[in-house]
Amino acid sequence: MKFTIQRDAFVQSVADVSKAISPRTTIQILTGIKIVADQDGITLTGSDSDLSIESFIPKEKDGEELVNIQEEGSIVLQARFFGDMIKKLPETSIEVAVNDQFIAQITSGGSVFNINGIDPDEYPRLPDVEEADLFRMPKNLLKTLIRQTAFAVSSVETRPILTGIHWHLEDSVLTCTATDSHRLAMRMAKVDDNENNLSFSNVVIPGKTLTELNKILNDTDELLEVVVAGNQILFKGDYFLLYSRLLEGNYPATKNMIPTGSKTSVKLETKRLLDAIERALLLSREGKNNVVHVKNLESGELEITSVTPEVGKVTEHVTTMSYEGDELKISFNGKNLIDALRVMEASEVHINFTGAMSPFVLKPIDEDHMLHLFSPVRTY
Amino acid sequence: MKFTIQRDAFVQSVADVSKAISPRTTIQILTGIKIVADQDGITLTGSDSDLSIESFIPKEKDGEELVNIQEEGSIVLQARFFGDMIKKLPETSIEVAVNDQFIAQITSGGSVFNINGIDPDEYPRLPDVEEADLFRMPKNLLKTLIRQTAFAVSSVETRPILTGIHWHLEDSVLTCTATDSHRLAMRMAKVDDNENNLSFSNVVIPGKTLTELNKILNDTDELLEVVVAGNQILFKGDYFLLYSRLLEGNYPATKNMIPTGSKTSVKLETKRLLDAIERALLLSREGKNNVVHVKNLESGELEITSVTPEVGKVTEHVTTMSYEGDELKISFNGKNLIDALRVMEASEVHINFTGAMSPFVLKPIDEDHMLHLFSPVRTY
Repeated sequence: MKFTIQRDAFVQSVADVSKAISPRTTIQILTGIKIVADQDGITLTGSDSDLSIESFIPKEKDGEELVNIQEEGSIVLQARFFGDMIKKLPETSIEVAVNDQFIAQITSGGSVFNINGIDPDEYPRLPDVEEADLFRMPKNLLKTLIRQTAFAVSSVETRPILTGIHWHLEDSVLTCTATDSHRLAMRMAKVDDNENNLSFSNVVIPGKTLTELNKILNDTDELLEVVVAGNQILFKGDYFLLYSRLLEGNYPATKNMIPTGSKTSVKLETKRLLDAIERALLLSREGKNNVVHVKNLESGELEITSVTPEVGKVTEHVTTMSYEGDELKISFNGKNLIDALRVMEASEVHINFTGAMSPFVLKPIDEDHMLHLFSPVRTY
Repeated sequence: MKFTIQRDAFVQSVADVSKAISPRTTIQILTGIKIVADQDGITLTGSDSDLSIESFIPKEKDGEELVNIQEEGSIVLQARFFGDMIKKLPETSIEVAVNDQFIAQITSGGSVFNINGIDPDEYPRLPDVEEADLFRMPKNLLKTLIRQTAFAVSSVETRPILTGIHWHLEDSVLTCTATDSHRLAMRMAKVDDNENNLSFSNVVIPGKTLTELNKILNDTDELLEVVVAGNQILFKGDYFLLYSRLLEGNYPATKNMIPTGSKTSVKLETKRLLDAIERALLLSREGKNNVVHVKNLESGELEITSVTPEVGKVTEHVTTMSYEGDELKISFNGKNLIDALRVMEASEVHINFTGAMSPFVLKPIDEDHMLHLFSPVRTY
């Protein structure tokens, strides 16, 4: 194998496929990046066996030569050093040559790196995903869906299904839901480009898959293809493929958990509420539960308090835009509310409380495409 | 105690004095910031008992009211939460009120923090430094002296004196030297403002003291007073004082270590050499000794190599501006050379080698105010 490649394109692709590689893997071959040179260009692959990312660098793009292939072939090289190494090479052009002993010689200007590689035949094959049924959505919309739900997945493995995000597609409306059983984030979006009127349910995508995908996608309205087949999902862009295993098991029926009524309805400015809760938790950084207590005042304001014994107490008064219904006295995990408020794009929010020991709902004002649900905590 | 203070001035002073506070201290009172309100303004103090920083916020500065004192008094408050807390308060004006039980109430807009404080009488007294003999130097010059020497102090406590920086003042020339016994950094500067022709020797300032001082000083040519008295050094600016204990013991006579002759003399571009050595060490991040091997080529270039078994080998060719004298073949800790090259302001450097097993000297070309010395390592 021997080729010359443009540095910036190489650096970008290596960074993308590296996101699938786990530094903790015990499978030697998966610590590497597979590099394949054929007559069309260079294909890079990184994988942790559940998630695989493939990036393609064509010989030419927009009239600019990116790769010049002198000899086809393939190699697997350690990912750990590789990204850093090519980023720091002195010239914009890099030559890669591999000999029979799987030693790669990387040359650029006055720098020569001789790196021990691994036989590419040992590298696992990527899953075969049948591309019959697919829908398309803009990359920036997908990024928003991920950002507004992925934070709410469970980080503990006691119920593995909750470490994923549930996708449901019906009548060209995609509903994404994540919950750790104490809070829930739900976001819906219309999918315009769905020719075959594809629908599915109980597709649970690992949180890590979507978090890494979000890092790779650029924030444009270019369309991305999404294919669901068997226990795999495939995201397909112009020059990359991301394959991921789906989580097995039944996702809880979250729809029934969401209260429809309301005993107390409060409208607030998002930033004012967020700042107040952040300050209320400042003293409890070490605290395990991040509990804040909220009650209404006669002035129409909300009073938010948090007590950390031995350190002190914080009291915050937050102006409301409107307050309707019963008196309010509730305690909950303030950190969870902060997480949700941070991903809301709306400048004003609506909270519906249904009692001191019932879950409450946070939404943008007058919008139904997004919903956050929080369980209260019992305090005596 | 009760006062109202302008937030930004308070935040800045708290950040400054916090730099003296050690998060690992076992002395409860030293985890706090002492706050004193008197008729002139607010004085804040932080200390780890070796290093103490005092910051003063006057009632008025440049015609702007910074503090309004309603009642004089003092308190000690936990540093850990305090900086973060006042930074996030909603209004630009902050009210601080302390009651008889040492509970401080911090109010700003709709936020009220009640913080448990400590009796200020328990706080240790700052050292008494007689301010008879002093010299003055611009803050930005002092910052440069610190930056160009402090990195070379020893980080291990086996020879405590080497964790400090040696200052020597004679004929109004200040010489700063730091060494960890494998490399040495020396920087000299003329001190213009030295009325009483002060001189001293064997003043060894803890590396931490100067590193923290560098963080506090702004990069201007305002003068700073330096007082050395007994086993203390005091740095005195317009609104702050930094006291530090000096290290006890005799600093090694470093002057005799510096070779005066030269067997091989090489001139190089700083950036080219720095980039090449950084790349040469890319594969050896895990390596303990960071050894690079340097030899001259017939072309007049230097060849720098580094081998990490199992990973690979890097070869760098560096163009020289001039090469004079004997053949060169030497091995040394490349990381140490990187540290020195990063703080050099000169774009071109001069290296004098005196043999494969003798220390070599790095200097800016045609300048004598700065010198770096490196020991080679033996490799077989």
